[in-house]
Amino acid sequence: MHYTIGIDLGGTTMTAGLVDEKLNIVGKLTRPTSLPRPAADLEEALADLCRAVTESCGVPYTAIDYVGIGTPGSVDFNTGIIGNNPNFGYSNWALGPDMQDLLGCKVYVENDANAAAFGEYIAGAAKGCRNAVIITLGTGIGSGIILGGKLLRGFNYAAGEMGHTVIVKDGRHCNCGRRGCWERYASARALTEDAQAAMQEDRGSLMWKVADHIEAVNAKTPFDAAAMGDATAKRVLDNWIDYVGCGLANVVNTFEPEIICIGGGVSAQGEVLLGPIRDYVLAETHNFTSEKAPLIRACTLRNDAGVLGAAALAESI
Amino acid sequence: MHYTIGIDLGGTTMTAGLVDEKLNIVGKLTRPTSLPRPAADLEEALADLCRAVTESCGVPYTAIDYVGIGTPGSVDFNTGIIGNNPNFGYSNWALGPDMQDLLGCKVYVENDANAAAFGEYIAGAAKGCRNAVIITLGTGIGSGIILGGKLLRGFNYAAGEMGHTVIVKDGRHCNCGRRGCWERYASARALTEDAQAAMQEDRGSLMWKVADHIEAVNAKTPFDAAAMGDATAKRVLDNWIDYVGCGLANVVNTFEPEIICIGGGVSAQGEVLLGPIRDYVLAETHNFTSEKAPLIRACTLRNDAGVLGAAALAESI
Repeated sequence: MHYTIGIDLGGTTMTAGLVDEKLNIVGKLTRPTSLPRPAADLEEALADLCRAVTESCGVPYTAIDYVGIGTPGSVDFNTGIIGNNPNFGYSNWALGPDMQDLLGCKVYVENDANAAAFGEYIAGAAKGCRNAVIITLGTGIGSGIILGGKLLRGFNYAAGEMGHTVIVKDGRHCNCGRRGCWERYASARALTEDAQAAMQEDRGSLMWKVADHIEAVNAKTPFDAAAMGDATAKRVLDNWIDYVGCGLANVVNTFEPEIICIGGGVSAQGEVLLGPIRDYVLAETHNFTSEKAPLIRACTLRNDAGVLGAAALAESI
Repeated sequence: MHYTIGIDLGGTTMTAGLVDEKLNIVGKLTRPTSLPRPAADLEEALADLCRAVTESCGVPYTAIDYVGIGTPGSVDFNTGIIGNNPNFGYSNWALGPDMQDLLGCKVYVENDANAAAFGEYIAGAAKGCRNAVIITLGTGIGSGIILGGKLLRGFNYAAGEMGHTVIVKDGRHCNCGRRGCWERYASARALTEDAQAAMQEDRGSLMWKVADHIEAVNAKTPFDAAAMGDATAKRVLDNWIDYVGCGLANVVNTFEPEIICIGGGVSAQGEVLLGPIRDYVLAETHNFTSEKAPLIRACTLRNDAGVLGAAALAESI
């Protein structure tokens, strides 16, 4: 039996999973990332995590084909060097080459959003669909694009920034420097902010009952209040879903994928979210896709998507 | 020496080019499409055109590897069947299979916009750039997307409809059923209509001198008047270029191609058009593409793009 190791490297924790040939996670270890610390220290800690997860499963280290790492930042997949990683405080970080030296095996490094998207393709909601787009509604909108079973990386590994496509010309300012980016209207954060703004206008909204105070509002708040019959919450939600749908219809007209998977905490809302989104996207794209509209589903792997995608990176090329 | 034949099938004329292994057009014949007529008649005429162009070059028909056809309509590249072709009045037209029977060789059929885009990639402005996007500013906005040297076709051959991605949510009505599509603001037709509207507001605009009457206005009119110093034309043009740039920045954040090629009659404006577009796109995407911004150039093949792309379709898969 051969194995790979997939690492989900975050600003708070780092998780390594030992993954078998059938893409089962046979062992998993999570440790604090303990930032700030020098890059060399973190690399040693990552190498130790790899050894520990392998030993804990009683697997000899020689059975590891390669290690894949998903990390924040702008990653050059070809060199394994991370040009810019503001969260970690390193620049031009040679994570891939350094880890290859430390581990003595091939190491792939990929952007964490791409790695997680590839995980959903290889082992999750998009399994078997060789043309898939994974959209994560979080603080921003992350996207991972799989075409012909391979990750779309772009000429310099900056493709797939669908969250920063403008859908409202001259609209809300985005921290990327543009105005009217999709994520400024359709991320979970945008929903939260829209809900907060609507609550300030309507002191009688049930959103005030769902959340104790305005800072406790999150993307779930308007869903909960709308389910209780709150008209203001319903209005906020309908408006937000329109923007989600608008961007997804753009995704369809751009890629015509077989499936779009929606990730992020808000995807736990299930059909309450997915039903209206499907209706919106179908209405806006039926002229092109005829009867064969792309499937729209929720992601299924949650926190394991990053580990599984990283563990399968050799197949993403 | 081996050859292929590329056919550019339009509603008015049909052109067949005999193309050698080095992608030179060694002979070309154009005849009227003569619509309306039964599909079987048109197929016979296409077969005759293929024989005629081959004979005119003194090439034996056995030297033809395959025939490629670029045609309007929604083409299933895999089957060669055209589901919907309103211009021609046929539906579920088995053009590919029928032509294979008539010609006795392999026949590829592709959407005309995709074929022309592939022509620019294989032999024109995007030659050598394996990740390229071709944007044609015409009545609408056509787009052809080449990734890894292959055409992006989508799950059911409906990908690459960048003209129908919304950049102004709830904006101008589009005949695709959406509102605020890119092509409603940034096509050559949109520029023409914006110029006409501005002329009605400003009877002193030099655009009235450039065009004899309002129906004679086209996308070149505001360029000519702006070059003569007309402020109204300049304003119309600047606004239009903003919308062209906004959509191109979306293209960059989506695909990060090595090059974007601009086609359509308006691309003859050269640097007057391309300079401001480059500035706009660079300003809106520099956070992602760092120093390596995609090239933005004009298409070079003009009417030959369709013939050359069709003649090379076997390489597009």
